[in-house]
Amino acid sequence: MAPVVPPSKFERRTVLSVLPALGLMAGAFVPATAEAQTTSGILPSWNDGPAKQAILDFVRITTDSANPGFVPLPERIATFDQDGTLWVEHPMYSQVVYCLDRVPAVVKAKPELTNVEPFKTVLSGNREAIAKLSMPQLEAILVATLTGMSVDDFEAEAQRWLETAKDPRWKRPYTDLTYLPMQELLQYLRANGYKTYIVTGGGQDFVRVYSDKVYGIACEQVVGTAAGTKYGYDKAGKPFLTKEPKLLLNDNNAGKPEGIHLMIGRRPFFAFGNSTGDREMLEYTKAGAGTRISLLLLHDDAQREYAYGPAQGLPDTRLGTFPQTLYDQAKRDGWIVVSMKQDWKRIFTFEG
Amino acid sequence: MAPVVPPSKFERRTVLSVLPALGLMAGAFVPATAEAQTTSGILPSWNDGPAKQAILDFVRITTDSANPGFVPLPERIATFDQDGTLWVEHPMYSQVVYCLDRVPAVVKAKPELTNVEPFKTVLSGNREAIAKLSMPQLEAILVATLTGMSVDDFEAEAQRWLETAKDPRWKRPYTDLTYLPMQELLQYLRANGYKTYIVTGGGQDFVRVYSDKVYGIACEQVVGTAAGTKYGYDKAGKPFLTKEPKLLLNDNNAGKPEGIHLMIGRRPFFAFGNSTGDREMLEYTKAGAGTRISLLLLHDDAQREYAYGPAQGLPDTRLGTFPQTLYDQAKRDGWIVVSMKQDWKRIFTFEG
Repeated sequence: MAPVVPPSKFERRTVLSVLPALGLMAGAFVPATAEAQTTSGILPSWNDGPAKQAILDFVRITTDSANPGFVPLPERIATFDQDGTLWVEHPMYSQVVYCLDRVPAVVKAKPELTNVEPFKTVLSGNREAIAKLSMPQLEAILVATLTGMSVDDFEAEAQRWLETAKDPRWKRPYTDLTYLPMQELLQYLRANGYKTYIVTGGGQDFVRVYSDKVYGIACEQVVGTAAGTKYGYDKAGKPFLTKEPKLLLNDNNAGKPEGIHLMIGRRPFFAFGNSTGDREMLEYTKAGAGTRISLLLLHDDAQREYAYGPAQGLPDTRLGTFPQTLYDQAKRDGWIVVSMKQDWKRIFTFEG
Repeated sequence: MAPVVPPSKFERRTVLSVLPALGLMAGAFVPATAEAQTTSGILPSWNDGPAKQAILDFVRITTDSANPGFVPLPERIATFDQDGTLWVEHPMYSQVVYCLDRVPAVVKAKPELTNVEPFKTVLSGNREAIAKLSMPQLEAILVATLTGMSVDDFEAEAQRWLETAKDPRWKRPYTDLTYLPMQELLQYLRANGYKTYIVTGGGQDFVRVYSDKVYGIACEQVVGTAAGTKYGYDKAGKPFLTKEPKLLLNDNNAGKPEGIHLMIGRRPFFAFGNSTGDREMLEYTKAGAGTRISLLLLHDDAQREYAYGPAQGLPDTRLGTFPQTLYDQAKRDGWIVVSMKQDWKRIFTFEG
């Protein structure tokens, strides 16, 4: 009997180098050693540790048809909060900056607002006074700047702002301030058959303007705080939709699972948030049957980003907070707390 | 110079038979004659005629990147009304039958309703009296049978009903009463990169129970009349959602384009309906820039299905109607009127 001869190194390399060209690098055809190599290359901006491991374990279990925790493809839903989870939310949500920036144009169109609060304060440019506006005053600004126009005009206006406005700390467009480890995570989940959704307290129409370009998330996969629209006709009889000051979905707190049911109709298997506004989404996800994972981002890196939340230096942002009780619930309910400082090797693409 | 020799029949056949195995049957690689052959095999339950031709032209134009009417993949949205468009709506919407069938269980749980209208009439089983219930009375039945339970309990209940209830004319489950030509159309559009949505005046949660199994449409691609839900906890502290009697979206008439904006965020390129409830969706779709198509199904086949609408025998269904004015608008605005009698070779899968 002829001895079994292992393939030469040359042959093996040739086989491996040809596989990607054939689109066959999907696991089953690749020997175990090559698979291990691939795994070490995923989520490169994440440090090895319990958080990264929990994510890898979750994906391994839920995508292995031989595992009791397997999740069929159509049910693979992953939901992400946006502000403070996918991109920077400090010191102010980008959309609030957008609304404040829009005030001069709104007052120009309606001069009778010039000396009316809160518009007067915003026009004054006094940052300290602006920061002290009450919630009802902020809401009045949101209503004045986000409704009353056609959905097409709103989209064009928001698009223009996103192309020109810059964050004061990094001097870059707000859309540059997404977290690289989260971008990698979105891609990794999608590569494993997960449909990724943004579930944001921010305005649905606002986030949809850039979600595809910035996160690779189609606008129909953005669930956010939504106002109603009103169908009507222009002078030429052409139908269009006007954004109305009528709140349909307040996509915060309990509104997140409610919005997920309305817009998706399935309980997620994966959810990621960073504040009390995400509490119910994380609870709801984790409480489902089977293998589910909820993750909570802790902003504890004052040097590379910001430090706020439990035992951190800065006060919370005004709309979403991360009190000690949320941290305690994460520990009690088995959510994964992700530390920016410990778990992330790199935060932004523009930093080396 | 050597004469140009056409490839032998044998060679040509071999090439064509290999193409599908390589996944290359996408048009660009296939010679014109082969394309014509392929085209004749699509939408086999449709008769040749202007309606089928309009659909084929629309798909050809919007999927050809060299054509000025080309539509990029993410924007390929097709929306379909359900009742009377994808399946039979006469003599009563299936969901209304479901609600009437649920009344005994509701009254059993709340015996104080036994002698209260409209429940008393429904319990009497008097078909004539039931058919005469007023709209507010019908609404009271919908609220009593569709809200107040958890979303999971509702889904299980509707699922059970769908498995057992039968249409009185065909003695088959309601889910068998989908139109084969429409099933073929859904598949044809999806094969050409269109994301197919149901946009129904029916209950979103109800249609989602079977949309995937019956139409191959994922529950997140069902837009329907939607009531709010309420987040809460069971005795063990486990979170769940309860269906509330609070209307969020009345997905009829102007509510259809409004619902499309809320749930999808893009104007469709393709829309198909059959009644005044679809008028605004069809207008909105057709009025968009580029190549768009709106289609209206005319029920004019009393023998194979039903005949109602303009100049037909039967009265309209109570909730969606097809008056002469809708027909006139279709002609004026360039919508395609599809005649069941003329354009459909076969209506149901269970008929030869």
